[in-house]
Amino acid sequence: MHTSAMLLLRRCHSLTRFGPLNTQRHQVTPAVVSCAVRLWSSSSEDGGSYQRAHGPSWRHGLAGLLAGTGAVLAYGLHHHKAEQQDSSTVQTIEKTSAFPIISQEEVTTHRSLEHGIWVTFKGGVYDITKFVAMHPGGDKILLAAGGALEPFWALYAVHNQEHVLEMLSEYKVGELSAEDVKKQKAIKTSDPYSTDPERHPALHINNLKPFNAEPPPELLSDSFITPSAIFFKRNHLPVPQVDAASYQLHIEGLPGGVLTLSLEELKTRFPKHTITATLQCAGNRRSEMNKVKQVKGLNWGIAAISNATWGGARLRDVLLAAGYSPDVAQRAFHVQFEGLDKDVTGTTYGASIPLNKAVNEEGDVLLAYEMNGQDIPPDHGYPVRAVVPGTVGARNVKWLGKIIVSAEESSSHWQQNDYKGFSPGTDWDTVDFKSAPAIQELPIQSAITVPTDGAVVDRSSEEVTVKGYAWSGGGREVVRVDVSLDGGKTWQVAQMRSSEKGQAPGPSPPPGRAWAWKLWEVTAPLPAEAQELEIVCKAVDNSYNMQPDTVPPIWNLRGVLSNAWHRVKVEIREDDNEI
Amino acid sequence: MHTSAMLLLRRCHSLTRFGPLNTQRHQVTPAVVSCAVRLWSSSSEDGGSYQRAHGPSWRHGLAGLLAGTGAVLAYGLHHHKAEQQDSSTVQTIEKTSAFPIISQEEVTTHRSLEHGIWVTFKGGVYDITKFVAMHPGGDKILLAAGGALEPFWALYAVHNQEHVLEMLSEYKVGELSAEDVKKQKAIKTSDPYSTDPERHPALHINNLKPFNAEPPPELLSDSFITPSAIFFKRNHLPVPQVDAASYQLHIEGLPGGVLTLSLEELKTRFPKHTITATLQCAGNRRSEMNKVKQVKGLNWGIAAISNATWGGARLRDVLLAAGYSPDVAQRAFHVQFEGLDKDVTGTTYGASIPLNKAVNEEGDVLLAYEMNGQDIPPDHGYPVRAVVPGTVGARNVKWLGKIIVSAEESSSHWQQNDYKGFSPGTDWDTVDFKSAPAIQELPIQSAITVPTDGAVVDRSSEEVTVKGYAWSGGGREVVRVDVSLDGGKTWQVAQMRSSEKGQAPGPSPPPGRAWAWKLWEVTAPLPAEAQELEIVCKAVDNSYNMQPDTVPPIWNLRGVLSNAWHRVKVEIREDDNEI
Repeated sequence: MHTSAMLLLRRCHSLTRFGPLNTQRHQVTPAVVSCAVRLWSSSSEDGGSYQRAHGPSWRHGLAGLLAGTGAVLAYGLHHHKAEQQDSSTVQTIEKTSAFPIISQEEVTTHRSLEHGIWVTFKGGVYDITKFVAMHPGGDKILLAAGGALEPFWALYAVHNQEHVLEMLSEYKVGELSAEDVKKQKAIKTSDPYSTDPERHPALHINNLKPFNAEPPPELLSDSFITPSAIFFKRNHLPVPQVDAASYQLHIEGLPGGVLTLSLEELKTRFPKHTITATLQCAGNRRSEMNKVKQVKGLNWGIAAISNATWGGARLRDVLLAAGYSPDVAQRAFHVQFEGLDKDVTGTTYGASIPLNKAVNEEGDVLLAYEMNGQDIPPDHGYPVRAVVPGTVGARNVKWLGKIIVSAEESSSHWQQNDYKGFSPGTDWDTVDFKSAPAIQELPIQSAITVPTDGAVVDRSSEEVTVKGYAWSGGGREVVRVDVSLDGGKTWQVAQMRSSEKGQAPGPSPPPGRAWAWKLWEVTAPLPAEAQELEIVCKAVDNSYNMQPDTVPPIWNLRGVLSNAWHRVKVEIREDDNEI
Repeated sequence: MHTSAMLLLRRCHSLTRFGPLNTQRHQVTPAVVSCAVRLWSSSSEDGGSYQRAHGPSWRHGLAGLLAGTGAVLAYGLHHHKAEQQDSSTVQTIEKTSAFPIISQEEVTTHRSLEHGIWVTFKGGVYDITKFVAMHPGGDKILLAAGGALEPFWALYAVHNQEHVLEMLSEYKVGELSAEDVKKQKAIKTSDPYSTDPERHPALHINNLKPFNAEPPPELLSDSFITPSAIFFKRNHLPVPQVDAASYQLHIEGLPGGVLTLSLEELKTRFPKHTITATLQCAGNRRSEMNKVKQVKGLNWGIAAISNATWGGARLRDVLLAAGYSPDVAQRAFHVQFEGLDKDVTGTTYGASIPLNKAVNEEGDVLLAYEMNGQDIPPDHGYPVRAVVPGTVGARNVKWLGKIIVSAEESSSHWQQNDYKGFSPGTDWDTVDFKSAPAIQELPIQSAITVPTDGAVVDRSSEEVTVKGYAWSGGGREVVRVDVSLDGGKTWQVAQMRSSEKGQAPGPSPPPGRAWAWKLWEVTAPLPAEAQELEIVCKAVDNSYNMQPDTVPPIWNLRGVLSNAWHRVKVEIREDDNEI
């Protein structure tokens, strides 16, 4: 890393340090955030961050290759057609290099394991055949086979890191001919993220492209309903530009054939149903796992969770209109969602949920077109998204384009080879993604939003107020939050609320339909002797599930499902009033 | 305690020590079991074991008194009518005692907090007014107000302990007149448990009256379907004698009025539905909590859980036949069950479940008349019991007499003031039973059945096989069991099975309907250096809920919901082959 970058990193770090938040960070200005962005956006990404891989893992690498889809091949062919036309005209170039000069035509012939996998990057030619199996992003790397890496790295900014470039350099086999370099440059690489919406400057950005950000914890627990602007944002791809007037939602796989609905039809043909539901990213609190041992994924703090009111048509009603009857449940077990957000190959984001969640009257799954009483903002799925309450964020597919009732789960990367939990003993060499179920309902969760780790409390204040949130998946209501000031030796019960401060709580949710979080608070006297407090919280849901005590035994290679007791340390400053 | 009793206790202890089981106990003979019975039956009981209570807790004591039911008063009046008739004839008796002679008539006038609460026991008169609030069994103690303790203690054998007698002696205020003592003796106190069925000698008995017993752990994990004879038994009252020919089940609270069904009608009017479901007592593994700090309740080991196949009518079908329609759900939220098992006042065992569990097609609640393909045995609810899969044993009401669809939960002691979880910081002085929900779905659970704690493994065997069970409430399927040989530092994944050994597994349960446990097993090499293994297991369900690491943070005053990692220590004996 260049020295100037190092300095910048240090400066940004001290101002915006993530994970254990320090109290100075409250006044983060937009300028500082954008400084942080540049560095964080290159630190890691859910699509697979780069670690030094020691030794190839051919087993699952080859499995990935064999599972390569037609879409991949189709893209590859299309991508190289233009390049093949002229690449034979110039064969050699005068240039001083230890590497041979290679034409694009030659590169293009290396698009299979049999003939090798070659790619180009900034005029270099690389034989990455041996790297394919180690690629954290799986077989997506094959999309670039025989061509340039640049358009792909524009989509997945995680690659813009020095150690990635170092890794690549080990595979260098030649220099691309000057003529071909010129041609490549002529093809303007447009930034697929250039049309992403503006975002609120208070957000802590974990990754810029695709955009992933969370609100400051202390803002989060201020509101029972999270304002949409600071609702955590977790995009897997560029935000698609969807025209509401021409928007169409297709529902397939039911006896009635394909049902196509316009936005207007969705709003007028089905009763509007409103629910308040908390969404949480599977990676929330991943940073705590990262401290135990490096995991792959965005380094989320404790705020990849938010609560909103959602309005829309019930998925159940729409499926019934499309011909669903209980007979269907004899042959179909899943409802797949496809987003309108696409990668360079046209592959859309996708996920599925169990059919019984989708059709159950008490499942409350929405095709939502409103968030907090307004049109859903672009970052949250405009104009229509799935809201699957009680279920991991990843299944709440945004910019919803297609719904497929199917015997199979979604075949998407995010359903099959991501968003699953494993034993702490499972590593990237031994992991078998088929051995674990796709995450649907999330486990019991809670965290402390105030005070932040490292905060200082004056002895003269005599007491400390602790605040936080608690939520559980599957509609299980949080029934208790225990708070400890002494690292878990003794506990007291926090006060919980299910409405905005000062407002009367709404009616209790029916059993199994507690979709919204609870905010909690406890004020306790400062212990007389203590110089430091280790504040801990743990929640209990109405199935009496509890959070695990510690992180290492639930550590997993993807850093998901991080729900151990949350701990913050607070210093008690003795009064300085001897004057 | 008398010296002979102490000796007996020691001897029984060494032969039948409970909680962490040692390997010598495998050959327990009926004689030894009955020795153990006598002691265990008096050690503690779910109805409330006696601890020294320091200082009265008037707050909840008074609340209990004010909540006293009409039944209590009615019993009190009935109980004392006969005694009042003659008690005025004899006023004084020549007897040497430091205490005054008191007539039954006088005792009878002390039946309220205002006039004091007096009771008699073996010729002594006791003013227990100040003790009422400290009574672990709650306001049930008021049933004896103004009369004799003996008939109640015959029902709740927990009282037959020396420290209970000591405690009572502190409240002595007089001697009952000789004439009244004679009258009391004339009323033969029959043993309500004399008609209880014979039980299998392999069972470890935690309490004889009412009968509570569990199978040896190593037998438990031998069979996927637990044989009925060793299925754990948890009775709250004497086993009622029910005549199948005249048996009637009443269903109330629905628009159709009261529906009454004979056993024959239940069998013929409704399709028979069969499920395999695991039942678990809320107090399973309570002994581990007792080691942290004394709790109230039977000292269950790890085997208050068993798995059986149940056959019967769906409760849903019966409720529909009785006039249930979705409209009912606007005003009714619970289904109450009343057993035919009664205490001395005629109060039956009772519990309730949420209405949506009862009527949901996927709830699978049965009115079961078969257990493992045969008539349900007397200890398990002959002729009809509720089977509420995924839900704590206490709601699976046996000897079912009445079903009431209601706006309210069951008002029974077991629903309102028992079978609830609390924070570790909550004690009997601060507990507010209204603050916690009645336990319904249970949390994720697993335990090691083989080897037992304290077992010895020879180094020459080179490997160790660990076996156990895993289950979660609410139909959540167990998806993984992690096993550690080093106290939780490193983990490996166990093999699970859902069928008898050697048999093909059945089809996977639909989502949310995994009612049966899984048995698991792992064989691992003995670590070269270790002299002792601390074997630990923890399970994960498909909502990715995990077991908490340790017991103290989930400790609660009733010792329920004990589901921390299970740990057993095993010694590795080095080979002695230097000859």
